[in-house]
Amino acid sequence: MPNIQHIYHELVAIVGEAYASIDPEILLRFAKDETEDLIFMPDVVVRPANTDEISKIMKYCYAHDIPVTPRAGGTGLSGGALPDRGGVVLSIDRLNRILNIDEQNLQVITEPGVITEVLQQAVKEKGLFYPPDPSSRGTCFIGGNIAENSGGPRAVKYGVVKDYVLNLQVVLANGDIIWTGANVLKNATGYNLTQLMVGSEGTLGIVTQIVLRLIPHPTQDLLILVPFKALDKAGEAVSAIFRAGYTPSAMELVEIDALKIVSAYVDSHLVSIDEETAAHLIIEVDGQDKDVLMQEIEGILKVLESFDIGEVLFAEDEAQKTELWKLRRRAAEAVKAAGYTIEEDTVVPRAAMPALIRGVKALGIEYDFKAVCYGHAGDGNLHIRIRKEGHPHSLNNEAVKPALKALFMLVKSLGGTISGEHGIGLLQRDFLPIVFSEVELNLMRGIKDVFDAKGILNRGKGF
Amino acid sequence: MPNIQHIYHELVAIVGEAYASIDPEILLRFAKDETEDLIFMPDVVVRPANTDEISKIMKYCYAHDIPVTPRAGGTGLSGGALPDRGGVVLSIDRLNRILNIDEQNLQVITEPGVITEVLQQAVKEKGLFYPPDPSSRGTCFIGGNIAENSGGPRAVKYGVVKDYVLNLQVVLANGDIIWTGANVLKNATGYNLTQLMVGSEGTLGIVTQIVLRLIPHPTQDLLILVPFKALDKAGEAVSAIFRAGYTPSAMELVEIDALKIVSAYVDSHLVSIDEETAAHLIIEVDGQDKDVLMQEIEGILKVLESFDIGEVLFAEDEAQKTELWKLRRRAAEAVKAAGYTIEEDTVVPRAAMPALIRGVKALGIEYDFKAVCYGHAGDGNLHIRIRKEGHPHSLNNEAVKPALKALFMLVKSLGGTISGEHGIGLLQRDFLPIVFSEVELNLMRGIKDVFDAKGILNRGKGF
Repeated sequence: MPNIQHIYHELVAIVGEAYASIDPEILLRFAKDETEDLIFMPDVVVRPANTDEISKIMKYCYAHDIPVTPRAGGTGLSGGALPDRGGVVLSIDRLNRILNIDEQNLQVITEPGVITEVLQQAVKEKGLFYPPDPSSRGTCFIGGNIAENSGGPRAVKYGVVKDYVLNLQVVLANGDIIWTGANVLKNATGYNLTQLMVGSEGTLGIVTQIVLRLIPHPTQDLLILVPFKALDKAGEAVSAIFRAGYTPSAMELVEIDALKIVSAYVDSHLVSIDEETAAHLIIEVDGQDKDVLMQEIEGILKVLESFDIGEVLFAEDEAQKTELWKLRRRAAEAVKAAGYTIEEDTVVPRAAMPALIRGVKALGIEYDFKAVCYGHAGDGNLHIRIRKEGHPHSLNNEAVKPALKALFMLVKSLGGTISGEHGIGLLQRDFLPIVFSEVELNLMRGIKDVFDAKGILNRGKGF
Repeated sequence: MPNIQHIYHELVAIVGEAYASIDPEILLRFAKDETEDLIFMPDVVVRPANTDEISKIMKYCYAHDIPVTPRAGGTGLSGGALPDRGGVVLSIDRLNRILNIDEQNLQVITEPGVITEVLQQAVKEKGLFYPPDPSSRGTCFIGGNIAENSGGPRAVKYGVVKDYVLNLQVVLANGDIIWTGANVLKNATGYNLTQLMVGSEGTLGIVTQIVLRLIPHPTQDLLILVPFKALDKAGEAVSAIFRAGYTPSAMELVEIDALKIVSAYVDSHLVSIDEETAAHLIIEVDGQDKDVLMQEIEGILKVLESFDIGEVLFAEDEAQKTELWKLRRRAAEAVKAAGYTIEEDTVVPRAAMPALIRGVKALGIEYDFKAVCYGHAGDGNLHIRIRKEGHPHSLNNEAVKPALKALFMLVKSLGGTISGEHGIGLLQRDFLPIVFSEVELNLMRGIKDVFDAKGILNRGKGF
């Protein structure tokens, strides 16, 4: 690797002086994301304007074996954008244009640096809907969502990012530019490079243009909050609702401890918290016709009758809906502020969620940690926030590792896996052998090698 | 490669005498599929009973560099299951058990040799729905559907095979056994090997177990047939319906020539064919509530008013629905019998379909062929059946190749690609450079190499 001054000057020659930096104050901004307050300083930050500049940067870095860490919104929870090997952080924040909202074909072509919520709003103005909706939507980038295969609460009805990506322009590690597919809804032409890129966490290439399919925007929704006296019953109710033929647009679980913390954190008194309640389900239905939705809610409530529920809160207006969603969306932030600094992103078949929650509590006693749970119950995707006194970080922490290992072994035994929507990044890397065999890991290593023989992209992450 | 007697005896030792064969009569049954009456004789056919036997077969064949062509139902239209290099045909027809219908999690675990319609019916009996629905559903295998990423008419609302596959057990070329993912609805753990396998046409491994997600079965549907005086208007109407917020469960196009042929072929008089009509759209809506569906149909008809349509046929009962669907489903077979022996499987952004159809007709004049079109208008997936006197086949046919090349160049220029749901197989292989750059093809070759370094699986197919 050339010396840092040299790299800096080469990058300035490509992007101009305003968009490359070795100033420690600026480097620090690109040294962290939302993962456990971890900080890794890059050597240089570069902010290219377009695909061509990214290609030139990658050609140079590939030729000189310089590690490159691609960076989107910096809201990741697994450390995928952290430059733990130093080198170059390549920020895509200047590729922030929505290039074309195609109302004829219900597609949008966008650059990766567009904030997810900005994209959602832009297509909504045309009556169109891009459903994936991570909690960080107000600050995360669509490119980062592609890298992590993000989900969010609506995934239970509408699927995750991978279900909306049709085609990607990608700059490979060596600077070559490809398109992964075509702008079509069905494709049986060659290997699915598009889906291989989605969720690959910046290890296979840098996404520079994104073609997403859209659907008509639902015009109506209804939201209820259902208290359960037993966590198990909440879990069982989720399965029962689907079996009865309903597909809510959200089915979120919030454990009572998480609700207490977030209610205080955002100063909300909407939900009265009594000692009888163990957890709530937030259930949303959406569609084009309010009467139909009302029938669905009635049907769902009928299913719920046999699960020992408390008094259901029916969101009366937009303000109440917004407040209920705020309680759910800000749970992670609130619980983190309360000292639960480690977040896991487990996912199991949805009927196994009660067993997972029970298991988490038992492990907490065994390994001396507190845990609160919330997440996407409809998908079996449970976020577990962990508080272990004196151990705010899990990375390379031998005091926390045995507990996490036991947790992931439990998840595996329940038919699940380590990450539903946050990715592996830095934090879960060492646990991959729990869910993949050596043969499977070698296939992934082989794929990485095909795309990036020198391993400069997100070096050391993955397998 | 060892001599054939030797291979035969080795395979008999694995599967027993009843399930390996070098009898020419039996070989002939495995020498063809539904592709243009092509015939390629294998040297040996083997029909293993389970994953373990498949692993042993592959270990042996890999060690001795013997080409293996995996075979499912033999209904393919691109020649993917044809053993054009001889060697072993490995039929999965004995892996035909549905292992578990998981009503708690709305999943099914199945072996790959189950007939698609059998699987659909089995889950329907539990109120569950597996939507992908290729025309060959009565004879094709679910494993073949995975290999080709099959679609069918419902894809427009429900997606294709890839949207339902959660996890696959796969025997690799060297006999190693892997699982590609986990039985969960969201997964951000490692590269998406599941989606890499889907649509890989038996070139990366042999799928031996399949985990599919299911959804609640719709209980109601309505079906209409809409005649259009101009093909273009039919194409435009498709886009307009989506933009108005409707998502039909099927939106199929049948050109008038195809309808005439298939009506005669199945002896149906349901649709009166007048000289004013250029094409029909078959539009289906489904859901849980008939009143809602009736409103949707009314809304759709309102949209259609401005597209110069003829008299709409509203299917009155199940018998009429079945007959209308028969006309669509048997179109390929009927048109093939009428001498249109070459079928292409083009796909474009849906709004480009009128331009594609116009282009096909113009190419017919230029290159002296007749073509009729039908297919999945909602997805932009147009099947084109071609009749060129004296040239029933397209494989290695220099008289047909320039026409197909021109067709695929047109498709590419419209933002589309070569295959929407039939795969590349043997027939489209030579045209891949039209839609992929050398860099892209090299990535695919590299992936093939990671999975099957000796290239024994479906040798010579692909890239």
